Amino acid sequence: MSDIITALKDILDSGGVLTGVDVTSRVAGWAEGACEALAVVRPRNTSEVSEVMKLCNQYNQSVVTEGGKTGMVRGCIASPGDIALSLERMNTIEELDTANGTATVQAGVPLQLVQEAAEAARFCYPMDLGARGSATIGGTISTNAGGNRVIRYGMTRGLVLGLEVVMADGTIVSSMNKMIKNNAGYDLKQLFIGSEGTLGIVTRAVLKLSPALNSQQTALVALERFEQVISLLQHCQRELGGQLCAFEVMWNSYFQLVTGDEAHQKKAPMDRNYPFYVLIESAGADQDKDTEAFEYALNGALEEGLICDAVLSKSHAERNALWEIRDNIEALFTLYPFYGFDISLPLDRMAQYLADIEQTLSATWPTQRHVVFGHLGDGNLHIVVTTGSEHVAEKHRVEDVVYSALETYGGSISAEHGIGLEKKNYLHHSRSTEELALMRLLKTTLDPKNLLNPGKLLDITVPNGQ
Amino acid sequence: MSDIITALKDILDSGGVLTGVDVTSRVAGWAEGACEALAVVRPRNTSEVSEVMKLCNQYNQSVVTEGGKTGMVRGCIASPGDIALSLERMNTIEELDTANGTATVQAGVPLQLVQEAAEAARFCYPMDLGARGSATIGGTISTNAGGNRVIRYGMTRGLVLGLEVVMADGTIVSSMNKMIKNNAGYDLKQLFIGSEGTLGIVTRAVLKLSPALNSQQTALVALERFEQVISLLQHCQRELGGQLCAFEVMWNSYFQLVTGDEAHQKKAPMDRNYPFYVLIESAGADQDKDTEAFEYALNGALEEGLICDAVLSKSHAERNALWEIRDNIEALFTLYPFYGFDISLPLDRMAQYLADIEQTLSATWPTQRHVVFGHLGDGNLHIVVTTGSEHVAEKHRVEDVVYSALETYGGSISAEHGIGLEKKNYLHHSRSTEELALMRLLKTTLDPKNLLNPGKLLDITVPNGQ
Repeated sequence: MSDIITALKDILDSGGVLTGVDVTSRVAGWAEGACEALAVVRPRNTSEVSEVMKLCNQYNQSVVTEGGKTGMVRGCIASPGDIALSLERMNTIEELDTANGTATVQAGVPLQLVQEAAEAARFCYPMDLGARGSATIGGTISTNAGGNRVIRYGMTRGLVLGLEVVMADGTIVSSMNKMIKNNAGYDLKQLFIGSEGTLGIVTRAVLKLSPALNSQQTALVALERFEQVISLLQHCQRELGGQLCAFEVMWNSYFQLVTGDEAHQKKAPMDRNYPFYVLIESAGADQDKDTEAFEYALNGALEEGLICDAVLSKSHAERNALWEIRDNIEALFTLYPFYGFDISLPLDRMAQYLADIEQTLSATWPTQRHVVFGHLGDGNLHIVVTTGSEHVAEKHRVEDVVYSALETYGGSISAEHGIGLEKKNYLHHSRSTEELALMRLLKTTLDPKNLLNPGKLLDITVPNGQ
Repeated sequence: MSDIITALKDILDSGGVLTGVDVTSRVAGWAEGACEALAVVRPRNTSEVSEVMKLCNQYNQSVVTEGGKTGMVRGCIASPGDIALSLERMNTIEELDTANGTATVQAGVPLQLVQEAAEAARFCYPMDLGARGSATIGGTISTNAGGNRVIRYGMTRGLVLGLEVVMADGTIVSSMNKMIKNNAGYDLKQLFIGSEGTLGIVTRAVLKLSPALNSQQTALVALERFEQVISLLQHCQRELGGQLCAFEVMWNSYFQLVTGDEAHQKKAPMDRNYPFYVLIESAGADQDKDTEAFEYALNGALEEGLICDAVLSKSHAERNALWEIRDNIEALFTLYPFYGFDISLPLDRMAQYLADIEQTLSATWPTQRHVVFGHLGDGNLHIVVTTGSEHVAEKHRVEDVVYSALETYGGSISAEHGIGLEKKNYLHHSRSTEELALMRLLKTTLDPKNLLNPGKLLDITVPNGQ
C-alpha cells in the first residue's frame, strides 16, 4: 500500500478511505467506465478535508474532487495516479434560516434536497437542472451551473452568499457570509465559483433563497423569423416585468426530432413546420393576475405579428407536456452517435454564426444532421451534430468547426457546462493570450504544486509537480 | 522635472499630463483638500493607460486611479509621491446594443449618462446612487457599488458582463463579454470588481441593461416592532413577486431628525412617534395592475397587524416627497461633527447588535446621539453617531465600538462603501487571518511592486517597492 494511503487511513475512519474493488466498483463519471483512482477518500467535514489536503500537499499527491458526477465536460474524472475526493458523506443541510432567507449546507448535499428543504420553509432555491437528484451543491458551485431559470435568477455565482474552501495546502478559508452586501475587501469566493475544483475545494456554502412563487404560466409559441425571436424575448422581458423565468428556443430541426408519432417522440400541440418554437414560462405571486398579464403579453405579441401560433397550458399536466417536448432526451439519443455542444453568443450574431457552421458542416459531411435548441434568453445554444461516426478524430473535426467560428462572433465555447478535459484544447477560441496567462498565474499561485484537479480546464507544468 | 513625468509627457498629448497648479487646483476627493499627487495623468484610451503603466512599472511609480471622487472611504486619495490617473477623458459610451441589452462604455463615463442613454433606448441601467452625476462607471465597478435598488437588481458585480483591465505591468486583459452565460475558464473580471483599483485598472466595461419599467408604486409605512419589519420584508418579497425595488428602513431616531417643522426638516406624512418607518417601492410593467397588487400587499400587511400606519403616494410629487425624507442629508448635517458608518448584518442579529452598541455608546459618551437607517432589504445599515467632538482619537474610539461588535454578530464593516484608507485598520473584524492572507497573496501576485493604489484596502510591504 502506498505511503499516502496509509497516512490517509491513519487520519480518517474506516469508511474514509476506499481502495481496490471499492474504488473500481464506482463509476468515474455518468458516461464513464470504472473509477481508476488510487483511492476514494470520503471526509465527513471541512476539518477532515483540510487534514487530507495537508497530507496530499506533503506527499505531492494530486486530488480530484467529485460531486454528483453529472458534469458534461469530464471535469472530475480521476486518473490512476489521482486520489478521488468524494464529498458524499458531507451531505448535511446545516441550517435553513428563514429570517435571512439563506440555506447553509455542506458541499455534498444534492441540489434537489436543498430545493425541497427551501420549499418546505416557503422559500425557493431557484437553481435548477435535470440532474438535480444527483448533482451536488458543491458541483453546481464549482461549475457555476446555469440551468432553466437563469434569465430570472442568474447563474449559481449570484446565488452564493458565503463559501468555505480548503486550499491545496490544507488551509481553510471560511467566508460564510449571510449578507447580500459585503464589500469588506476582495470577494474571495468568486475565485472558487466556476473554477472547476482547480483552485480550492468547496466544502460548505451559504445559499441565497428566493421567496416561493405562487403562480406559473407556460406557453409554446411559433415564429417565422429569428429576428422575431429576439423581439419576442424583449417584448416578454418588458411586458412581464421581471416575472419571465424561461425562454427556451427550439429550431425546426430540433422540434421535428422531438415531436411526432414515433414512440420516442412527443405529440406536437401545433403544426410542426414553423421555423422556430419558443417555450415561455413566467412565475409570480398571484395566479389569476399573473395569468391575465401573461395572456395579455402573448396577445400583444400576436397582434404585433411577432408570433404566428400559440398554445397556453391550462393545467400542470399540460405544462409538463410542453416541457417534455423541450426535454426529450430520448429523441435526441436516436441521433447517436452524436456530439453535443453548449455554447453562447450575442443574440444578434446567432443566426449568422449558425448559417456559417451549417455551411461548413454540410460541405464537409454531406450526410451530417444537426439540431439546435437552447436557453435563448441567456444567449445559450445547445447544438447536437451527428456525422454517423463516433471516431475521436471525427469528433475533433466537428469541434473545430463549431468552436473556431465562435472567435469571429465573440462567442464562448462554454455557456454553462464548463471546460474540464473536454474543451480545454479549445479554450483559446474564447480567451485571449493575456486572459489565459492570468488564469495560469492564478492557478500556479493558489495551487503551486498543481495538486487540485490537475489537467482540467488548463494544462499546467510545474517544476517538481504532477 | 522628475524622469517619470518627462517620460509620460513623451507618450501623451499636451493635456495628458498635468503638473503644478493644474494638480493643486483639483480636489483630492469630495471631502478633501487639494490634490497632492506628483502629476495627474489623463489617458484617452486603454492603450494609453497600458503605456502609462508600462512606464510606471519601469520607474516603480505608484498610481492612484480616480473616478468621480465621490467615494466614502478615501479610496482614491493620491499621496504626494503618487501619480493620479484620471479617466475623465475616457468618457465615451461606445455602444448601446439594443439586441443584446448591453452598454459598452469607457470607465470614465458618469453613471447618470449611462442611465440616460439606456432610458433613451427603452432600457434601464438599474444601478443608482445619489452621486450619479459624478460617480463614474469605473468607480462603481471598482467599488462594487450598491445603492437604492440592490434588493431587486443586485450589486454592481451582477451588472457587469464584460471588463477590460490594465494590469500593473501594463498588460491589457480584455474580457469584453456580452453574454449572460460564459463558463469558459475562470471569470477573471470578478478579481477587479470591488477590489478598489488595487489589482488592476478598469478601463472599459460591458454593462447589462434591464428592460425599462412602466410602473412605480411607493409607500411609507410605520411599524411597532423590529420583528415586524423583517416579517414585512418577507411579506413584500412574497406578495410582490419580484417587483420589490426598495425597502428602506428608518429607526425613530432618524425619522425624528429628518422630519418636523424646522427649515431643514421635511413634513412628516404621519405621526412621528412610531418606532420604525419603512419606505417601500415596487416597479413593474403595468401601472394599474401593479398598483392594485401593491395596495393588496399593503392591505394584507395591515390586516395581519404587521403595519400600523401607511401612506401611499398618488403622484410623482408625492413619491419624491417620501424619498426626500429618506434622503434628507441636510438634516443629517445638523448633527455635525459626526461619524458615519456603513455596515451589514444578518437581519435577525440587527436588533441585538444595535442594543449592544447603543449601551456602549451611551455608557462611554452620555451625551452622544446617533441615528440609524438603511437598505434593510440588503442587510445594510447606516449609523450616524455624534459625540460632539471631531478629534481623530475620538473617531477611532467610536469606530472601535461600532466595528468590534460586528465580529460577534457575523456582520461586515463595509456593506457597500468599501475599505479604502478609512476602514483598513478594521478589516480584521470582518475577515479571518486566512482570508486576509489570501487577499495579500492576490495583491502581491497581481501587483508585485505594489504600484496600484498602494496603502488602500490592505497594507502591503514589498522588498523593493513603495
